Amino acid sequence: MLETCDLTLNYESEDFNKYLKTLQKRLNLLEQQVQAKKIPVLIVLEGFGAAGKGSTISALIAALDPRYFKVYSTKPPTEDERRFPFLQRFWAKTPERGKIAIFDRSWYYDIYLPAIDKEHKLKKYAGKIREINVFEKQLYDDGAAVIKLFLHISKAEQKKRFETLELSPDTRWRVTKEDWKHNKQYDRYYETFDALLNATDSTYAPWHVIPSTNRRYAIVSVYETVIAALEQAISRADKAADAPVLPIRKSDDIKLLPIPKLRDVDLNKSLQKEEYRILLKQRQKKLFSLHNMLYKKKIPLILAYEGWDAAGKGGNIKRMTSALDPRGYEVISIQAPTPLEKAHHHLWRFWTQLPKDGHIAIFDRTWYGRVMVERFEGFCSENDWHRAYDELNQFERSLYEWGAIILKFWIHIDKDTQLARFTERQNTPEKQWKITEEDWRNREKWDLYEQGADEMLSRTNTEYAPWVIVESNDKQYARIKAMDAVIEQIEKRLKEEK
Amino acid sequence: MLETCDLTLNYESEDFNKYLKTLQKRLNLLEQQVQAKKIPVLIVLEGFGAAGKGSTISALIAALDPRYFKVYSTKPPTEDERRFPFLQRFWAKTPERGKIAIFDRSWYYDIYLPAIDKEHKLKKYAGKIREINVFEKQLYDDGAAVIKLFLHISKAEQKKRFETLELSPDTRWRVTKEDWKHNKQYDRYYETFDALLNATDSTYAPWHVIPSTNRRYAIVSVYETVIAALEQAISRADKAADAPVLPIRKSDDIKLLPIPKLRDVDLNKSLQKEEYRILLKQRQKKLFSLHNMLYKKKIPLILAYEGWDAAGKGGNIKRMTSALDPRGYEVISIQAPTPLEKAHHHLWRFWTQLPKDGHIAIFDRTWYGRVMVERFEGFCSENDWHRAYDELNQFERSLYEWGAIILKFWIHIDKDTQLARFTERQNTPEKQWKITEEDWRNREKWDLYEQGADEMLSRTNTEYAPWVIVESNDKQYARIKAMDAVIEQIEKRLKEEK
Repeated sequence: MLETCDLTLNYESEDFNKYLKTLQKRLNLLEQQVQAKKIPVLIVLEGFGAAGKGSTISALIAALDPRYFKVYSTKPPTEDERRFPFLQRFWAKTPERGKIAIFDRSWYYDIYLPAIDKEHKLKKYAGKIREINVFEKQLYDDGAAVIKLFLHISKAEQKKRFETLELSPDTRWRVTKEDWKHNKQYDRYYETFDALLNATDSTYAPWHVIPSTNRRYAIVSVYETVIAALEQAISRADKAADAPVLPIRKSDDIKLLPIPKLRDVDLNKSLQKEEYRILLKQRQKKLFSLHNMLYKKKIPLILAYEGWDAAGKGGNIKRMTSALDPRGYEVISIQAPTPLEKAHHHLWRFWTQLPKDGHIAIFDRTWYGRVMVERFEGFCSENDWHRAYDELNQFERSLYEWGAIILKFWIHIDKDTQLARFTERQNTPEKQWKITEEDWRNREKWDLYEQGADEMLSRTNTEYAPWVIVESNDKQYARIKAMDAVIEQIEKRLKEEK
Repeated sequence: MLETCDLTLNYESEDFNKYLKTLQKRLNLLEQQVQAKKIPVLIVLEGFGAAGKGSTISALIAALDPRYFKVYSTKPPTEDERRFPFLQRFWAKTPERGKIAIFDRSWYYDIYLPAIDKEHKLKKYAGKIREINVFEKQLYDDGAAVIKLFLHISKAEQKKRFETLELSPDTRWRVTKEDWKHNKQYDRYYETFDALLNATDSTYAPWHVIPSTNRRYAIVSVYETVIAALEQAISRADKAADAPVLPIRKSDDIKLLPIPKLRDVDLNKSLQKEEYRILLKQRQKKLFSLHNMLYKKKIPLILAYEGWDAAGKGGNIKRMTSALDPRGYEVISIQAPTPLEKAHHHLWRFWTQLPKDGHIAIFDRTWYGRVMVERFEGFCSENDWHRAYDELNQFERSLYEWGAIILKFWIHIDKDTQLARFTERQNTPEKQWKITEEDWRNREKWDLYEQGADEMLSRTNTEYAPWVIVESNDKQYARIKAMDAVIEQIEKRLKEEK
């Protein structure tokens, strides 16, 4: 992409200031529209060192209302950030609907920095590049404008700029040895940037290469590019209500495993109290020991609990955790999203609650709410849940590529058992808080939810994040089965690691 | 505090399990009440290494609903965390009302760890100890229960436990060289812990020393202590509505500087356009250069903007920032608190938006909302704002002790100027969004707000965080005056640093 960029382009017109004012006014107006129409906007600035990223951002935000934008300066990940999937810190910074996030360097930095530094071929980062494309696509699908600008200058121009910076005592300290190394290795940077831009140039998040030799030209180009992109996003938002319903999006690049229908599951499995007690102690001891291994080897474990109301999720989780060191796990209870969560992509609240490596996160209800409660209660559009199976598969794939062990439980009971448990809750004063009108209402939709659950299970049962259907008419049986599945999965991974 | 603790205490009773069940039931019930009454709860676990903090937390949370508590394991601060005031990472983790935060090691760790490691006397940490007491008092005043538990074991017992841990392959790796050093230096730990406990044992956040030689005894004691503390907090919450109105809390340990009444301020100051242009360029250049110095010396700068509606805060901020590198500052626009912010102490949202060292944070409206809009619109109780002046002074003092330069602007206009600007906004289509019904309503309360502003200015004008009244009938004059104040303050600090 870089070679077609004409670096001699120059904005010589006398009326630069006047034209800039017009652009600023236009951008300011668009910012208000973006706010009103609740469009999240991400503006990415990448480019050669000294190409003017900082001053371009200064020029850009001169037109913006500070209540609606935020500038993020990307540094190499800190020690703590390295303990999460590489996109996690960027997911966390995706803007609320109606707000603008400006990234001075971005998720691309995490690829080209090590690539150039260690003289890796970009091929080595194919997995991460894939994840970036998925990330940008998911944001785009959620209505976001992802505007990517690359500021381009030549090797000679870069050298000149470093020299100029070194002349002033105010700016001298900003030119580091690294910068000079950068200039010497310009060709390697060029090659890496070019390949990276090509690999991530998409219809949903295209790259705009900005010739930046001439500062005025660069500023005008950036303004024009951002304005055009925002106009496009606004027009897309205006048409969103009339968008045709697309079929369910398949995860073509992901292999799904077969899973039985819920109605075919034998719910008569049970355990005697004595046997249960013995097994429980054994399993807890085993889990305690495996938890230590995970911690030592820095492997994250993610357990996802879904299932019917009153199926026994809470008690199952309690037994799972009671032998674990509380400093090494967290139970995350997913409830209705807060206003802040609703203002973000539906996966944002999960990305920001991942465990550190070596830790365990247990989700009591999960990201699958999208294709169950949100689908059936109308909290999202048909298109939203139609593409969600793929989004969820991709999300879990990112977790897997990071190194996580993922296990998903469907805690299963039949309708009669639910009725018996509801009735017991209703009749036991200490348990009454556990049962609400809503539970009864949801129960009426049992068949609908069962169909939804079957669809969910079959469309998201992958090798790297399998579902386990846990027969829970007998809660004791269910607890041991869930623990056994976790033990098996951990042991499998530890064997692979050897 | 430690010497009165009888380490031989033992819970021998046969009915331990039965009694524990009773305690768990009681705690579970209290958790529900804490939730219903919206009481934030902080439980701190400190103690000697291997005293059983982890297993005690395990035992404690066995009774709790995972939706309402969170366990935080405190490590030494990361590089990133070191760039903020030391209490910042703990303020960020204070729980929402109705939730429980359990700290496995806490803010005390940041004192005793370096103190013991570097053989410092605790005297060296007097400032931080003072801040901790202020922190706990502020949470208590906000209705929180701050429950501090110290698990005590003897040197011999500690040694025995390390040896036992080393026997099992699952736990061997957990015993580090540091731990053995800890055991050797037991006496120094003892002395430091004891002094620290004494210095931070208060009526609002008392320490409870738990003899932990016998595990059952420790668990029962911890349960009983937490239960008693929660009962007390609940009874305090029940009485809160009838609490007597206390007088305005003074900051006895903080020196206030005199400041003129707003009605005595001469608003006729102005600048000619030509002069303004020249001064603006000069000042921006100067600020750019000083910003670089702050960055290099890692000094944070915090600018707080308050003032009348339409006084020109936005334009003032814009001129202040337009010469700065956008990667080094952030404008934080304070609006009505979100539900999440409302569920926390009123200072929480400011603690969590501080700049890193070397960075600039500009607050467009600030923590002073408590004694202005929240006071006059009835969003807080009389007691809330009565103690707020002191809370704000203490907050700024923490920032100052961390190393921040703090400057607070009251952007001032008279009533006629406001009317003229409101009318102009109303009559200019692009500006209509800037004026709301609320602005007109607030205007009617001008005299009330002026009295409030005078009180605020005189009660919070400190040497380390002074107010500057900026005459803004002429906006150009106001911009230069604000910039001059910032330049002066930075230069003063840089001189002190030399």
